[in-house]
Amino acid sequence: MNIILLSGGSGKRLWPLSNDIRSKQFIKIFKTENGQYESMVQRVYRQIMKTDPNATVTIATSRTQVSSIHNQLGEKAGISVEPCRRDTFPAIALATAYLHDVQGVPEEETVVVCPVDPYVEEDYFAAIKQLGERASRTDANLVLMGIEPTYPSEKYGYIIPESSSQVSRVSTFKEKPDMETAGSYIRQGALWNGGVFAYRLRYVLDKARGLMGSADYEDLFNRYDTLDKISFDYAVVEKEPRIEVMRFAGQWKDLGTWNTLTEAMEETSIGKAMMDETCANVHVINELDVPVLAMGLQDVVISASPEGILVSDKARSSYIKPFVDKIHQHIMFADKSWGSFRVLDVEEGSMTIKVTLNPGHSMNYHSHKNRDEVWHVISGKGRAVVDGLNQEIEAGHVLTMKAGCRHTVIAETELKLIEVQLGKDISVHDKEKHVLG
Amino acid sequence: MNIILLSGGSGKRLWPLSNDIRSKQFIKIFKTENGQYESMVQRVYRQIMKTDPNATVTIATSRTQVSSIHNQLGEKAGISVEPCRRDTFPAIALATAYLHDVQGVPEEETVVVCPVDPYVEEDYFAAIKQLGERASRTDANLVLMGIEPTYPSEKYGYIIPESSSQVSRVSTFKEKPDMETAGSYIRQGALWNGGVFAYRLRYVLDKARGLMGSADYEDLFNRYDTLDKISFDYAVVEKEPRIEVMRFAGQWKDLGTWNTLTEAMEETSIGKAMMDETCANVHVINELDVPVLAMGLQDVVISASPEGILVSDKARSSYIKPFVDKIHQHIMFADKSWGSFRVLDVEEGSMTIKVTLNPGHSMNYHSHKNRDEVWHVISGKGRAVVDGLNQEIEAGHVLTMKAGCRHTVIAETELKLIEVQLGKDISVHDKEKHVLG
Repeated sequence: MNIILLSGGSGKRLWPLSNDIRSKQFIKIFKTENGQYESMVQRVYRQIMKTDPNATVTIATSRTQVSSIHNQLGEKAGISVEPCRRDTFPAIALATAYLHDVQGVPEEETVVVCPVDPYVEEDYFAAIKQLGERASRTDANLVLMGIEPTYPSEKYGYIIPESSSQVSRVSTFKEKPDMETAGSYIRQGALWNGGVFAYRLRYVLDKARGLMGSADYEDLFNRYDTLDKISFDYAVVEKEPRIEVMRFAGQWKDLGTWNTLTEAMEETSIGKAMMDETCANVHVINELDVPVLAMGLQDVVISASPEGILVSDKARSSYIKPFVDKIHQHIMFADKSWGSFRVLDVEEGSMTIKVTLNPGHSMNYHSHKNRDEVWHVISGKGRAVVDGLNQEIEAGHVLTMKAGCRHTVIAETELKLIEVQLGKDISVHDKEKHVLG
Repeated sequence: MNIILLSGGSGKRLWPLSNDIRSKQFIKIFKTENGQYESMVQRVYRQIMKTDPNATVTIATSRTQVSSIHNQLGEKAGISVEPCRRDTFPAIALATAYLHDVQGVPEEETVVVCPVDPYVEEDYFAAIKQLGERASRTDANLVLMGIEPTYPSEKYGYIIPESSSQVSRVSTFKEKPDMETAGSYIRQGALWNGGVFAYRLRYVLDKARGLMGSADYEDLFNRYDTLDKISFDYAVVEKEPRIEVMRFAGQWKDLGTWNTLTEAMEETSIGKAMMDETCANVHVINELDVPVLAMGLQDVVISASPEGILVSDKARSSYIKPFVDKIHQHIMFADKSWGSFRVLDVEEGSMTIKVTLNPGHSMNYHSHKNRDEVWHVISGKGRAVVDGLNQEIEAGHVLTMKAGCRHTVIAETELKLIEVQLGKDISVHDKEKHVLG
């Protein structure tokens, strides 16, 4: 089974856990059987591998998410990196070309595309496998998953099938209706469109050749920023007459807001949290080291991270976006390909951060124009290179780098250091990368 | 006018702004005319000085509050330091002896004792001045302030006066009644006992001689831990037949809980906070650098500090204490005589803190047995002494102190430094003070 997982936007609606650089699919919020927490992307990947240990998984995503994917999945999944943000047709065409040209999947094989963020059980991936199998033997060009609606939602698109059988030709598509219309669609046998569909690679490669002038991965990648911003639904699905839908009646939840996300949580709190006995339907997700105490609240979500604190009535939480757009908070935490950093203190003319490097990883060899830096290793061991000079480092070592000085750390074990930056105009953009000679 | 301000306990009921080492009277929560914020103790001191610029103010308090008082009031107020916690009779006796022996106030002068934490206006201090004047010319030994009740509270003690005139002899005292009884007291003309009373110094010095065997400040101080734990009300007030009460009808609020405290706030938020338009009667007090976003809440107080985050229905907030008793949070922030510190990061085997020294101040010359420390000056200038060696320091300087090494910093301007501690069993108790030779 070949799967393309679409790992999309920045997801401000789950602020303060998600923000411009950290997407909701990477928040570790789901408790697993062994008591650890996993993210949406980890959960989905694990479920796919359980359904089909030989599945080829390719994640279609932006450059900013690559580090987080490597951190959470290691090097297991293929990644089709979008050089900039276009829409789903360019993203799916690029990922399909990646599967063919880079992964060597033959044109006649099928692939299933699905979003990375629904909250589902393993039966969903069994259905996805059937979807791929159906696509390989039907004369339809596209096979969609149609989710049996559980209520007349105004948030989803609807697929109207020609019949009520398990697999049917599609009669038509309806975009987000009002509740009454949604009810009438459902009485006609309509299904939710969860954005899941299967096709033979050749079909989308042909579409790319026809509509983008090429199906060559490298070519598409290089001129990605010139491709039209157009959705796959609009460019392909809605124009395709040979299209089928296969019913799925299992659990499917869209975790786009705090309200729906907390419904999928196993426990009422993650992190340090206390609630009094008068709290009802309260969820606390606390990433800070200090406790949250909730008293006398009903239907409230509390979420605290290094970026800020949200306290919201659950129903109101879906209106969060315009408020978060107004917050211009310095990024306080980030996952990097080599580990993570957290801002500890910001002052005029200085910034103190904590850097954690994963074993075997190193940051870029780099220098800064306008700031001096001091590293104080607080745990672990490794090697530092400062202006070409190698030195072993371990807890207790202090390294001083003046502005202009080139430096990097290579972690042997997990290595943590406190970095004090000092200078005018401290900025993430003041960074020049160098080749480590 | 002589005033003794009783500055009491640790006030866990305003967690996370107050805790074991930071009392509610030092939280800067009241906006002044110039847009700055002041604490209860600063507000009360300012109001006293406006009422009587020549007032002698003595704060009776524990050792742990001395630094905060110096930070907030400078050296202006006298401080009668209680060597350990006893009850109000020992505290008042000690402070009265301090006024007499240390401040040189004659025995025939009067003093007014009042708690530091009621939320009042200047008419209250005008009444306090009258209370002192009354005590100097009446033949009663004690003159109490009786506050005109505004509702039948179950939280306060009641004074039943003999008559309804402005000044009256006291008929009897009643302790915290139920609401119905409180109503009947009020119909009889009862007044709230706000713990404010005036007397001639000689009166309490005589009581100390009679009940404690001495009225000598040094003697009382030295054997303070052997004195009985007994309240002034029980030991003196309730046994005194020659006792008057003077009515006060102005504003008086007890700010013991988040509910009452937020009622006294001028604005709905302090610090970085956003609320949506559906929030009603919500208060946010945020001491963190990152924003709080509140949505769809009613009658809720949100308070965030380096110690933790409280989100509580306002009425429930008075039941906070047993929950805070369960929190065993490392102290994350503290005012010191020389400035303040804040914990930035805690790891197994290391701790990173930010130290701020006020201009002209220095920490103790000290050493640690079990940890190395590194200072990185991030702003300001001053002088460091490390194992007897003096050196000028300024932003950018890095100083390394191995375990056992003696060290201090003397700030010339405000001086900020990042201190990284490294070692086993890092503890505030691992500190040896030395004389700076």
